[in-house]
Amino acid sequence: MTARVHKLINQPENLVDEMLAGFCAAYSDIARLVDKRLVMRAQPKAPGKVGLVIGCGSGHEPAMTGWIGEGLFDVNIAGEIFAAPGPELMVKGIRAADRGGGVLICVSHHAGDLLNAELALELCQAEGIDNVDMVVLYDDISSAPKGREPERRGTAGLFFVWKMLGAFCEGDGDLAAAKALAEKARDNTRSLAMSLSSCASPVTGEVMFEMAPDEMEIGMGLHGEVGMGRQKALGADETIDLMLPPLLEDLPFQAGDEVLVLLNNSGSLTLMELFVLYRRAAAKLAEADIKVYKSWIGAYATTQEMAGFALSLCRVDEQMKALWDAPANGAYMKQL
Amino acid sequence: MTARVHKLINQPENLVDEMLAGFCAAYSDIARLVDKRLVMRAQPKAPGKVGLVIGCGSGHEPAMTGWIGEGLFDVNIAGEIFAAPGPELMVKGIRAADRGGGVLICVSHHAGDLLNAELALELCQAEGIDNVDMVVLYDDISSAPKGREPERRGTAGLFFVWKMLGAFCEGDGDLAAAKALAEKARDNTRSLAMSLSSCASPVTGEVMFEMAPDEMEIGMGLHGEVGMGRQKALGADETIDLMLPPLLEDLPFQAGDEVLVLLNNSGSLTLMELFVLYRRAAAKLAEADIKVYKSWIGAYATTQEMAGFALSLCRVDEQMKALWDAPANGAYMKQL
Repeated sequence: MTARVHKLINQPENLVDEMLAGFCAAYSDIARLVDKRLVMRAQPKAPGKVGLVIGCGSGHEPAMTGWIGEGLFDVNIAGEIFAAPGPELMVKGIRAADRGGGVLICVSHHAGDLLNAELALELCQAEGIDNVDMVVLYDDISSAPKGREPERRGTAGLFFVWKMLGAFCEGDGDLAAAKALAEKARDNTRSLAMSLSSCASPVTGEVMFEMAPDEMEIGMGLHGEVGMGRQKALGADETIDLMLPPLLEDLPFQAGDEVLVLLNNSGSLTLMELFVLYRRAAAKLAEADIKVYKSWIGAYATTQEMAGFALSLCRVDEQMKALWDAPANGAYMKQL
Repeated sequence: MTARVHKLINQPENLVDEMLAGFCAAYSDIARLVDKRLVMRAQPKAPGKVGLVIGCGSGHEPAMTGWIGEGLFDVNIAGEIFAAPGPELMVKGIRAADRGGGVLICVSHHAGDLLNAELALELCQAEGIDNVDMVVLYDDISSAPKGREPERRGTAGLFFVWKMLGAFCEGDGDLAAAKALAEKARDNTRSLAMSLSSCASPVTGEVMFEMAPDEMEIGMGLHGEVGMGRQKALGADETIDLMLPPLLEDLPFQAGDEVLVLLNNSGSLTLMELFVLYRRAAAKLAEADIKVYKSWIGAYATTQEMAGFALSLCRVDEQMKALWDAPANGAYMKQL
């Protein structure tokens, strides 16, 4: 499939601002634009709670504006398409999220996101804003070998972490406990992605990379970063049979474990494909005596109109299950 | 954009069954497969309430299995891809949804859906199942001129009707009142769609129709039915400026009206495009002194990976607003 070069936008240089204006106009009961590029939950959490901030490139959807709200993030600082926001803007976001209980900066591990978060932390220290910390999160097993986990990229599996962390920060835990919870969730999470197609940048109109119609790639990053290589496109069951074993072996997930499962749509995969893929994954997990606690299937962090998905697993204990089940009310993440 | 011919499925003849198996495995707390192709809410509603049944072709997502649950549909009878289920299966679904308060068959107006629902009603009469009725719903202004509304197709605007009707049928209203509510919501709803690309059938692998990369079509149906014609692809604001006036004139929606707005993703449009489109639509509605009560932006009824959207408006009164705001808990429709 060739990528879709014509996008329904206006001037590319206005895209991010117009997108945020439309989002906040549609969901004004949940989120509001408090500054250029700075989206905050409409009803701030109670004083004394830990604030959660994330700065990230735009273009992955509904991340992260769709995850602002009760039980989720307090503030999202939206960067340009696929580019992290700068440290000054991050500091504004940290100030906005501060309810007196400290602020945790969440970083999905990519070079730009990490650099800007580190610079923001330095600025905070220089400006006397204390009780701010950051947690660096990663889950993509294709981006660095086992034993070098901190070099791995952050991908869709981090939504497990976001959900648990958001619920945790509605409670009475402090900043250090929030960070420890995020690290526990991260250390129990693994993801592996694949793609059948490329996508086009809405800014440049350029296709990110070329793929033949009968090819697939395993292990692609959220921005099309190279993975484990190309091969002939397979059917659904064969694809799961290829992707699940390395994922299970990496943690490893073992008989008796209880897990959450996420199938993240990279953009233009259909839900029916994801359901067929899930069916096989659930059967294989049952064979391995790994119990599925709950599952999510849908678009959490897309890469524009790319046709692909990520399979993510998170091993859970009782605390994590309770946080997973806690209510949430974002524009694109609702849990009753 | 050429359509994506390789889909992540197994044997096409098993697609619908495997899709339903995967869906029900993932969301067993919400929906269960009670018979081949028959998906029902896991916790049936209280005895004496009106049951809501819909039979429709598969391939539009997350319709309608994603809308089974509390405050939504009781039973979905899933047909083949883009093809309505037969009347015998419909009757099974009607029996399953019957809680003693009668059953309403909801029909999104397409020839096959209507025919099979009519045959199912006849079968019910022959089998002595009484207190069953059907309501035929339509909203697409491009498919027949004003004054001939009952000839129009059902498209994404019907999600306004489904939401209100689902909430209504959790209450004490009877079958006739439920049908009257559905007709009121339908008669206040109008939709118009557009597309930038085609899609491929997951069964045959064939592309539904051909479109040039710089073309768009206004008025396309959910199955790619011909609309108001092709033209050069426009930007976001220009597209809204082309689509909104005929939509407003059709009902007509007037100054002082209060409306719900839905932007339905046909498949591979990005959320950022929909937000940019929404921003313009909201500004134009404000100029016309039409007040937006609430909005939905996302995938409600896709046409596989087609890149396009529908703009739908529903004029609401106090009853309709309350039904809109009522809680719902489907796998892909949650309202707190």
